Amino acid sequence: MAPIVSIVGRSGSGKTTLLEKVISELKRRGYRVGVIKHDAHGFEIDHEGKDSWRHKKAGAVTVALSSPDKFAVIKDVKAEWGPERIISSYLSDVDVVVTEGFKQSGFPKIEVVRKANSVTPVCSKDRRLMAYVTDVKLKTKLPVLRLGDYRGVARLIEKEIIRKAEPASIHLTVDGKTIALKPFIENLIKDGVTGMIKSLKGCSGAREIEIKIKK
Amino acid sequence: MAPIVSIVGRSGSGKTTLLEKVISELKRRGYRVGVIKHDAHGFEIDHEGKDSWRHKKAGAVTVALSSPDKFAVIKDVKAEWGPERIISSYLSDVDVVVTEGFKQSGFPKIEVVRKANSVTPVCSKDRRLMAYVTDVKLKTKLPVLRLGDYRGVARLIEKEIIRKAEPASIHLTVDGKTIALKPFIENLIKDGVTGMIKSLKGCSGAREIEIKIKK
Repeated sequence: MAPIVSIVGRSGSGKTTLLEKVISELKRRGYRVGVIKHDAHGFEIDHEGKDSWRHKKAGAVTVALSSPDKFAVIKDVKAEWGPERIISSYLSDVDVVVTEGFKQSGFPKIEVVRKANSVTPVCSKDRRLMAYVTDVKLKTKLPVLRLGDYRGVARLIEKEIIRKAEPASIHLTVDGKTIALKPFIENLIKDGVTGMIKSLKGCSGAREIEIKIKK
Repeated sequence: MAPIVSIVGRSGSGKTTLLEKVISELKRRGYRVGVIKHDAHGFEIDHEGKDSWRHKKAGAVTVALSSPDKFAVIKDVKAEWGPERIISSYLSDVDVVVTEGFKQSGFPKIEVVRKANSVTPVCSKDRRLMAYVTDVKLKTKLPVLRLGDYRGVARLIEKEIIRKAEPASIHLTVDGKTIALKPFIENLIKDGVTGMIKSLKGCSGAREIEIKIKK
C-alpha cells in the first residue's frame, strides 16, 4: 500500500494551502502523489445538468467518466470508506498519499499551527506526529519548520515517508476489510497465487496481479 | 463482471434522455445500476477553487473525495481505459452497467433512431444490436420499441442482459489486462485462493476476496 501522511491542524490554520504547495513540490521531485479529501458533511462534485450529473440523479449508484487522459468515478456508499480501503482500491498507483485531517487516525502527521489562527496545537499528544509547521514558538522535541517552508515539508515527507515505505508486495481485502498478513502467510499467498497465474497464456512476466472472487 | 449494454444512436437522437429514464426504471425494479460515460474530448468535473480541484491542479495524479454517503475519485490516465477495466476495478458492485456510445464495441446495443434527427440507423449491421427504439418505420427483424417506451427498454435489459448474466465468480487482472479463464482454471484459482484465505483470522466466512500483488 502506498504510504500516507496527513496534514493536520485547526480549521483555518492553512492546511489546504500547505498541502497544495507540498503536492507541487513532491511532483517536481518526480513522485506520483495521491490525495484523499475527507468531508464529513458530504461534497458536491460534477456540474448540474451535465450527462453524468443527470445519470447519477436518475439513480445510478456509480457513474464513471472516461476520456483519453482523465478518469473519474462518483459512487454512493453506505458508510464512509476508511483510507486503507480507498488507497488499496483507488490509489494503488501512487508513490505517496497526502491528506488533510484524519486527526484520529494512526497515520504519520504534520501539524500546522498559525499564530493568527491559534497558538495551541491539536495533536501534540499524538505519537505519530512527525513535525510542526508554524510561526509560533512551540515547546517541543519534534522538528519545527517555519510556516511557508513547503520545500522543507516535502523533503521531510520524502525522507521519512516515501523512502522508508516498505514496497507492499501483497494486499488482501476480504469483504471490504484489509487483512493484515504476517510475512510467512504473505509469502505463502504470494508464491501460491503467482505460481498459479504464471502458467497462463500471456501471464509469464506478470508484474501486477489482481484477483477478485465473489461468492 | 457486471453485464453491460450500450445505448447507441446518432448525436442528437435522444440517447442521454432515454438512458436517464431507463436508469430510473431499473432502479425502481431493484437493480443497482452503474454508468460509464465516455468522452473522447475530455470532461470537466469538480468545481474551480474547491480543495479537491486545487489539489488536482497542484499536480496530484489522483484525488479521492470521501464522505459518509458518497465517494469520488478523479485521476490522470496515460491512455483511455477500456470498459472492461473500468467495470472490474470500479463497478464491481452493480447489477448492470448501462452506457452511451461505444459503437465499435462488442457489447449488446440498443439503438435510438429519432425521425426529427435522422431516419437511418448507425448500427444496423452490428450483430450485437438487440433492438431499436424509434418513431421511424424500420425494416428489421429486431424488436422495435416506440420512442419514449423506457419501461419497455428496461424490461428488455432486465430479461436479456441482467437475468442472462453469468455470476462472475472470479476476475483476474494481470498488468492491467483482464485475463479470460477457462472453467477448469477458474475453479483451480478460486479454490486455491479461497483455501489459503479462509484459514486466516476473521476470514472463514469470506464472501468477497480481493488480492493485489505487485512485483
